[in-house]
Parts: sequence; C-alpha cells; structure tokens
Amino acid sequence: MRGPQNSTLPGMPDLVKIYEVGPRDGLQNEAEIISPQVKAEFVCRLIAAGLTIVELTSFVPGKWVPQLADAEELIALLGPLPGRHPVLVPNERGLERALVSGVNEIAVFVSATETFSQRNLNRSMDEAMKGVAPVVSQAVEAGLDVRGYISMCFGDPWEGDVAADRVAGVASQLAEMGCAELSLGDTIGVATPGQVVELLDLLNSEGLERGRIAVHFHDTYGQALANTLIALQNGVTTVDSSAGGLGGCPYAGSATGNLATEDLVWQLHGLGIQTGVDLEALCRTSLWMAGQLGRPSPSRCVKALSSSLE
Amino acid sequence: MRGPQNSTLPGMPDLVKIYEVGPRDGLQNEAEIISPQVKAEFVCRLIAAGLTIVELTSFVPGKWVPQLADAEELIALLGPLPGRHPVLVPNERGLERALVSGVNEIAVFVSATETFSQRNLNRSMDEAMKGVAPVVSQAVEAGLDVRGYISMCFGDPWEGDVAADRVAGVASQLAEMGCAELSLGDTIGVATPGQVVELLDLLNSEGLERGRIAVHFHDTYGQALANTLIALQNGVTTVDSSAGGLGGCPYAGSATGNLATEDLVWQLHGLGIQTGVDLEALCRTSLWMAGQLGRPSPSRCVKALSSSLE
Repeated sequence: MRGPQNSTLPGMPDLVKIYEVGPRDGLQNEAEIISPQVKAEFVCRLIAAGLTIVELTSFVPGKWVPQLADAEELIALLGPLPGRHPVLVPNERGLERALVSGVNEIAVFVSATETFSQRNLNRSMDEAMKGVAPVVSQAVEAGLDVRGYISMCFGDPWEGDVAADRVAGVASQLAEMGCAELSLGDTIGVATPGQVVELLDLLNSEGLERGRIAVHFHDTYGQALANTLIALQNGVTTVDSSAGGLGGCPYAGSATGNLATEDLVWQLHGLGIQTGVDLEALCRTSLWMAGQLGRPSPSRCVKALSSSLE
Repeated sequence: MRGPQNSTLPGMPDLVKIYEVGPRDGLQNEAEIISPQVKAEFVCRLIAAGLTIVELTSFVPGKWVPQLADAEELIALLGPLPGRHPVLVPNERGLERALVSGVNEIAVFVSATETFSQRNLNRSMDEAMKGVAPVVSQAVEAGLDVRGYISMCFGDPWEGDVAADRVAGVASQLAEMGCAELSLGDTIGVATPGQVVELLDLLNSEGLERGRIAVHFHDTYGQALANTLIALQNGVTTVDSSAGGLGGCPYAGSATGNLATEDLVWQLHGLGIQTGVDLEALCRTSLWMAGQLGRPSPSRCVKALSSSLE
C-alpha cells in the first residue's frame, strides 16, 4: 500500500492527537444492534492500529440509544486497555454506571442552540447545563478527566446561523465546571474555515487556549477535512474523527458521518505530522467493520485503498 | 435551501474563478455514451447556474475517447455562449477541428511523469512536449487563449513520489510555449497541503505567478477541498472542479471524481468569496445529471441538499 508523499508545512503542529469516536459516535445511530463482541473487536483493532484515544461507548439509558445499551458488557469484555478510553455520560446515573465500570475518563455533552437542546436532550440549554454541572464536579472529585462536547457550534438545522459568542459562552461554562477538554461539534457538517478561526480566536480571548480545544467535524457537506486543516493551522492539536467515516446525525436526514480517520491520517502523514497510526491496519479495520454493517465505508481513503488491501 | 453561515478569513481572495470541467473531465470516462443533446443541456444548465468558465469537450480522436467523439456536434448544438468555453486539444489535427468549430480557447495536456506520459499519451515526456509546442504556437497565432494541463503533479501510481522541481520544469516549458494558464493536476488525488505550497512557491520563484496558476484536485483520498483551501490561502484564484464530483481516472481503478463544484461553492460562499454561482440551481443540475447517468452524485453537498430539493 502506498502512502502520501511527504512535504511539511510551516506552522503546523509536530504531533496531532486523534480522538477516535467510531465505536460511540460512529455506531450510536446504527439501527441494527451490533453485538458487544463485535464492538470489542472493533475497539481492539483500532487500538492495535495505533489509536491511543478511543471513545468506547455511552452510559445513556438504553431506551434513548438502544445500540449502546451494552456499555457495561462491552467494558467488561475489553478489560484493561492502554491509552485514553473515555465514555459518554449524560447524567448522574450515567456517571454512577461509568464509575462502577471502572472508566477513568468521561465526556459530557450540551448544545450551543436552544432548539437542539430541546430536541436532543429534552431540556433547555440552562436546564442541561444545570444537569451537567454535578456530573462534572463529581467526576473531577473522583479523579476522572472530563471532556465537554458542544453540539451545533457552527449552524443549526432549525435556527440557522449560530453566533460564535453563544458557543464561547457555553464553552466557558463547561470549562469553569471543570471540563479539561472542550470539543467543538459541527453536528450537521455546515462549517467553513472562517467560522472555525473566528470561534477559536474568541475562545482564546476568553482564556480557553488551544491546548484544551478539540474540533469535531462531520462531512455532510464535504467540508470536514478543510475545516480540520484550518484548525490545525490555528494551533489546535486534538481532532475528533471516526474510523471509516462512520456516524451521522439522526436529526438531519441527509447527514453523513464524521470526518473519516483515514482521510485525516492521510493528510497528517503527508504533512509529516506524527499520529502513531498504521494507516493500512486502520483501513483493514474499517473494511472489516463495513462488512459487519453490510455497507461500504464512506471514507474516500478507505475506498481508494481497498483494492490494494483485498 | 439553506446555505453556509458567512464568516470571512483574512488573506483569502475576494473572487475565485471556478473552471468547470464536468462536461469534459467529468464525462470522458463514462462507458455508456451520452447523447450530445444531454451534454448540451448539461452545459446550458451549468452556465445558467452561474458558471462562467465551462470546458466543453475534447477534440481527441473518437477512438481514444468514444464518449467525446461528438465534439463538433455538441458545439454546433450549443451555438454562441456567454463566458469562457475551452476545449481540450491533443494535437494539430485536434486544433484544426477546434478552429473549424469556432472555439476561442483551448487546453493542451502533458504529464509530469514519464510513465503516465507513455501510458496516457503513448509517447515520452519529451515527445509529448514537442507535439504540443506547434499546437500552442498555432493556437496563439490564431488568437486563442491556451491553458496547459499538467497531470500527476503530486504523485504517480507507478513512479510514486513526484518531485516539485520536475513539475516546475514542465510548467516553465508550457509557459514559454505560450500557455497563459497552467493547471496543476493531482490526477490520482494523493496530494497533501505541504506539497501544494511547495510547488506554488517553486513556480513563483521561477516567474510563474499565482494569477496564471489553476489547481485541479481529485478527491480520491478525500483531500481535494483541503488542498484547494491551502492553494487559495497561498494566492491561487482559479480552481478546477466538476459539477456533482463527476469524473475519475481510468488508469487507477479506485480513483474517484474531481473536486465537486458544489462542495467548493459551499466553502467559498461560507468564506464570503464571490463565485456568481447559484448553489441550488447547480445542485439541481447535478441531480438531473445523476439521473441521466443512473447513479447518485458523489458530491457530499449534493447528497446533503438533495432532500430539500426534491
């Protein structure tokens, strides 16, 4: 398998942390239930391919997300793992379950828009923030690292434009609560590079420096990798992506998946940026997972490399 | 239909010229022959959607590219058109045909690598350059504008890495011959942003300033729009793309299409850059063309917007 030609770009980071969301964000909307054994194999193969941060699952109630109702079973199957392995936690009950399972990092989530907060969380932004606060403080007290996800940072399907200062306000609240890392989600994939820089600059001016920020782009409009590039040029070093481009948003019919980890790795390796990822092993994992799901990977890179791997 | 939220980025051009290659590069590898009437409707709809530069067809021998054997018929059907409407010309015979057809702009093509030159043109790079020279000089003499395409500028499926100075050498030769515009082709879609900047800087140091350079990315590995962004940040203002992401390279099995014009327009409009393109009309055109071809458009943007347009 050939990789990209190597040519560095001034001002880019030497190292980028890939935060792999495939097992959680990638699978959560799959209608057909995947067994915990297959999920465990997916996670193990991702780790074996060199991904050191893999979000495993979510401790949301099973009736909200049936696909992830096996969170405890999956974590028990996996046993101790090298690297960072956060789980998503929606409330105090979820945190209890996560702590019993022995995880050492969690992620909480809120929306930057009122409408999505109501639709996704069934509560207002204020109520959501009040619900998240004790989860974060208890987690921090228990010695866990906490990431805060913010949805709809760059546009909302119902409200349209989302002002950067609204997102910055939400981000500041999460940071004050104790979230060590903040992930800026383009849930419906509409962002363009000017918005990314505007929001990063605003966060910086409010004391939220780049080292705490992750970007989380969906590729719905084909913009994810270009937006990632501009974020890297502007000092971000943590990027969320999903092996094979799995994922999608159930609240926007045509939404496609997350930025594909393989497409990201191709770019980073071409730029001479270290990721620790074995692209061939990762592509083989996504091809295997595509077989499990019964449909081809949406990742361009996986498609292009598949013929040389079969 | 909603568009992207608007947020400008310092240092970006106010205006970007989109060089639409769908009717030629997009269709040339289609196995099933499309009628000149359908092609003419495609061109007219692209122009009506606001695209002012549309490459119409190619005057290659019909036995080389059967899909474009109807070049004369298509141009006769179209009649006089507003804007720039180049045609591809491989040799002096092709130029004769183009002149008889009344076109006022042509494009010639060479490869940056020896192997692709042999495989695509059945001649060495030197022979190809010698063949192209009289075409360019005669065209210039006849008052035509001439664009020079260079294939495999960022990687070659047989040779692997392609050195930027090799591409720059080819570009200089074409410029000296009289090519007003040079299009840097990433024929197999492997480029990453560092390569783009390296080549642009090298061309600049050899007197080939940005205003003469176009970039031509394929999205095989999902890199096309990010590479376009870095080219725009570095002063390029002409971008080749294909409506709906049509196209592909017959010499690389898994190769996917050109950068989709819609995905490009989404980014440019988000950045507040003028294109003159009506994104909705363009998407409708690509959806119609996808119907003609019997398969969905590979453009992410077309896919995402299709539900709101049907």
